Amino acid sequence: GGGGISCVLQDGHVFEKAGVNVSVVFGQLSAEAVQQMKSRKTLKDKDGKVPFCAMGVSSVIHPKNPHVPTVHFNYRYFEIEEADGTKQWWFGGGTDLTPTYLDKEDAVHFHKTLKEACDKHDPKLYPKYKKWCDDYFYIKHRGERRGIGGIFFDDVDSPSKEEVFQFVQSCAKAIVPCYVPIVKKHRHDPFTPEEKLWQQLRRGRYVEFNLVYDRGTKFGLATPGSRIESILMSLPLTARWEYMHTPPENSREAEILEVLRNPKDWVH
Amino acid sequence: GGGGISCVLQDGHVFEKAGVNVSVVFGQLSAEAVQQMKSRKTLKDKDGKVPFCAMGVSSVIHPKNPHVPTVHFNYRYFEIEEADGTKQWWFGGGTDLTPTYLDKEDAVHFHKTLKEACDKHDPKLYPKYKKWCDDYFYIKHRGERRGIGGIFFDDVDSPSKEEVFQFVQSCAKAIVPCYVPIVKKHRHDPFTPEEKLWQQLRRGRYVEFNLVYDRGTKFGLATPGSRIESILMSLPLTARWEYMHTPPENSREAEILEVLRNPKDWVH
Repeated sequence: GGGGISCVLQDGHVFEKAGVNVSVVFGQLSAEAVQQMKSRKTLKDKDGKVPFCAMGVSSVIHPKNPHVPTVHFNYRYFEIEEADGTKQWWFGGGTDLTPTYLDKEDAVHFHKTLKEACDKHDPKLYPKYKKWCDDYFYIKHRGERRGIGGIFFDDVDSPSKEEVFQFVQSCAKAIVPCYVPIVKKHRHDPFTPEEKLWQQLRRGRYVEFNLVYDRGTKFGLATPGSRIESILMSLPLTARWEYMHTPPENSREAEILEVLRNPKDWVH
Repeated sequence: GGGGISCVLQDGHVFEKAGVNVSVVFGQLSAEAVQQMKSRKTLKDKDGKVPFCAMGVSSVIHPKNPHVPTVHFNYRYFEIEEADGTKQWWFGGGTDLTPTYLDKEDAVHFHKTLKEACDKHDPKLYPKYKKWCDDYFYIKHRGERRGIGGIFFDDVDSPSKEEVFQFVQSCAKAIVPCYVPIVKKHRHDPFTPEEKLWQQLRRGRYVEFNLVYDRGTKFGLATPGSRIESILMSLPLTARWEYMHTPPENSREAEILEVLRNPKDWVH
């Protein structure tokens, strides 16, 4: 049960493909979802039945200009009812950046803005969720992260529902100051066909992460009756795969690859 | 242990990306592979250890012209040694076609050529392996097959090793007569930008099948030390995802979708 709204801007002046999903859904978890959840938390089910309610907002923005990075964010709230009637709840989410080329100033700005949003609640949050983000957005078969990270967290249920909700709101409010200045700075940057090609190869990696590893995408594709177009909205408009593509040493392409292979601390 | 050779032609006149892998590998099956194999056959392992030897040839050819279909084939031989020293062996493989537009004459030619190769050995083979192919290359979340099928089989270990090997050789010899006449017929066909765009959207579906469902790709990506570039060679040079793309009724785009949703019998 439930529903949602998907909005997509496609083939715009600045954005090649940009989408937002808002959804509020409820029902019984599938046996697969129960199994997956039990690997993360203790859960008392009644003959495998677990009523749940989930709501969230998610967005992926793929710009046209290879000097403007892709951004993704998702903030969600989950509630399940156990066999004895007790309820478990938790928040999850994050914001992360995927540049085609590295602009160190942008990376510092992005991470600093997220750190400030986290620090207001607890100085331990940013370092923990920054690492979680680097670990989560890992394309194992490539030995690369999808991007330069940001923050990511899941199963957060303390100190209290109200306090976590306040924290999630701070994260959500940080999205525009994190990203919009970077778009404004680079949207008119000149670029070469070679730079556009490198962007397309990086988009290929984005597709690999989302289809092979992303928990949300896999959960969605395996859920009968889910809205496929909303789930796959995150895929770029276009992508490219070349056999054995390796950028030359000391190039700007090699520079970003180095950071994707060995995540950096941007704020200290 | 073992090794192989990958050859890729990229950005040619006729073919956008075409690759062949030949490999002969041996070692111990991973715990994951043993588990997966046990779901298909009885297998006596020694503390989880199963020595194996596998060899095969595989190829994917993505042409430039949207009127020339993509072809894929793979033929392989597998051997494992059980705890008591007895050996199990089997063959697997198949050939299948993925057109962007339907040419009924081509579909009939492709399937008839495969049927003739199968019929020489047993008239029961083609209908069985044709259905297996339609079932295997199924993009569940789209409700579509990847293409118009062909033949697919796995775990074939009867009537005898020599006879199955003869059958597999007949299948392999059928590849050129199956595909090359179709390439020759269409490689100079004129096409519009709209037809090229539809091809790119279909390439997106090809990527979805290979990354989400294909057993070989998933096995390869999960195997430590496997050669990623050889495994992902099957991906097209370029692909595209548009939100909510639906071809107009009675269009040639709708015609192929109908066949991908409801596989046809092409030879009776």
